[in-house]
Amino acid sequence: MKKAEWQHDEKTRCTVDVEVRYAETDQMGIVHHANYIVWFELARTALCEKSGFHYSEIERLGYFLIVTRVEVRYGQPARYGETVQVDCWLERLTSRGLRFAYRVHHGDTSLASGATEHLWCVAETGKPCRTPEVLREPFARLAGRPE
Amino acid sequence: MKKAEWQHDEKTRCTVDVEVRYAETDQMGIVHHANYIVWFELARTALCEKSGFHYSEIERLGYFLIVTRVEVRYGQPARYGETVQVDCWLERLTSRGLRFAYRVHHGDTSLASGATEHLWCVAETGKPCRTPEVLREPFARLAGRPE
Amino acid sequence: MKKAEWQHDEKTRCTVDVEVRYAETDQMGIVHHANYIVWFELARTALCEKSGFHYSEIERLGYFLIVTRVEVRYGQPARYGETVQVDCWLERLTSRGLRFAYRVHHGDTSLASGATEHLWCVAETGKPCRTPEVLREPFARLAGRPE
Amino acid sequence: MKKAEWQHDEKTRCTVDVEVRYAETDQMGIVHHANYIVWFELARTALCEKSGFHYSEIERLGYFLIVTRVEVRYGQPARYGETVQVDCWLERLTSRGLRFAYRVHHGDTSLASGATEHLWCVAETGKPCRTPEVLREPFARLAGRPE
Repeated sequence: MKKAEWQHDEKTRCTVDVEVRYAETDQMGIVHHANYIVWFELARTALCEKSGFHYSEIERLGYFLIVTRVEVRYGQPARYGETVQVDCWLERLTSRGLRFAYRVHHGDTSLASGATEHLWCVAETGKPCRTPEVLREPFARLAGRPE
Repeated sequence: MKKAEWQHDEKTRCTVDVEVRYAETDQMGIVHHANYIVWFELARTALCEKSGFHYSEIERLGYFLIVTRVEVRYGQPARYGETVQVDCWLERLTSRGLRFAYRVHHGDTSLASGATEHLWCVAETGKPCRTPEVLREPFARLAGRPE
Repeated sequence: MKKAEWQHDEKTRCTVDVEVRYAETDQMGIVHHANYIVWFELARTALCEKSGFHYSEIERLGYFLIVTRVEVRYGQPARYGETVQVDCWLERLTSRGLRFAYRVHHGDTSLASGATEHLWCVAETGKPCRTPEVLREPFARLAGRPE
Repeated sequence: MKKAEWQHDEKTRCTVDVEVRYAETDQMGIVHHANYIVWFELARTALCEKSGFHYSEIERLGYFLIVTRVEVRYGQPARYGETVQVDCWLERLTSRGLRFAYRVHHGDTSLASGATEHLWCVAETGKPCRTPEVLREPFARLAGRPE
């Protein structure tokens, strides 16, 4: 297989617009830092949907994607009145989990970047499991590589 | 039955202290109004616990207490650095639901008052139901009257 | 003046799409009731913008629109995976404040309805004031009537 | 100076009890991961207060402590009905900022650990600055070392 086939392509990146909510600001006059984690989730939902399965369908299949790690580095603050963009891509795929990366920006201004790590879990038992069979190929595609 | 037996007594009122969280403020420099709904819930949880059943146990029994109505009137604002008090009491009890009333204050300063209305529901089906048998007497006591 | 001129027209109603966030759900499997207050605010922001002034500009002019009352009646629950619609219109306009009404729906299914009441306030002093001169005509138009 | 004088002592660690809020759960039946960031802030507020300055007083002095980085590693989930403990300590102190570390646990069960990094900022200009003179000694003491 040629290396080019493994490179990230258009299908593996997702950008969502997020309008800053007044309730998301704090008394510093900027968006409170915890909200970026929720914005990451919006972009992750949109990216997962590109696998062909909305995350709500994944849960109906009996699986959860639990969060094991979150990292955020903050740049310029986001403010009420702005609509920001959140990019998300699947940075790493393992047999039992994955790592998403994120960038939040307002046009050319970088507001934050970060990552979340997740493990697949059987909803009924709460136990970690291997990537569900039906989701392997769709997520491998998201990661920009053939299974 | 004598009227006195129906009057509200000490058991039917609950007050919780809530420390204002920085994340609860908004760019107006005060607590965002949506958070009072969450504070009401903290006081309601504490009041329900006086029935002998923590609300998490009620859910384990297979019931939900869904919210059908919320009302809040706002007075002076709450601010970061303050610990406020939230009073809750069971204002009305019907065969299928209840109405809780609330008062939020900071010492003698009134910050808000309000009410929430709820219906009992079977968790599995999501259908409204009569007050679960096992909870009738405990909630009647909360309401300050014998069943 | 003819009565028809006072009737609400297209300019005075605003509808925003809100994608349900995973973080907005609770362990009942539905959107937690406090989030509707935040959704109302999104629709109110969009409606205010139709006055020609984004609410962030109104604050820059030195005014706040403080919340004095909130009411919500809940119907069918909203769920993760759905995009709901929130309608907002200016129900009442007084010399010092206003009342917005809201309807949240998912297609034809009614999820909630409600209202919020507000007073104009001078940002620097926190004191209530009459509707700022510059905003009278724009908000009168939103209310569907000539000043 | 003897090494013992530099070791962390009782004054530099703070533990707060946090009662899980129903609104903090999500449809997975556990506390949504973004809330831990808010819990960290509660413990940080309590720790800062041990400096002799509540964080709200620091802001009144004209300074902000902006967040530049957040990291969380998640262990067992927290659930409604539980009261968890959040430990916080000042892990690192530099001339312009600091790093707090956190551990969230429920008795002996570890729920999460993490860190936040911050820079001092002049509130009026939003520009980073050196640790405000008046806060140097108090925060050095929090860090368990003499200035």
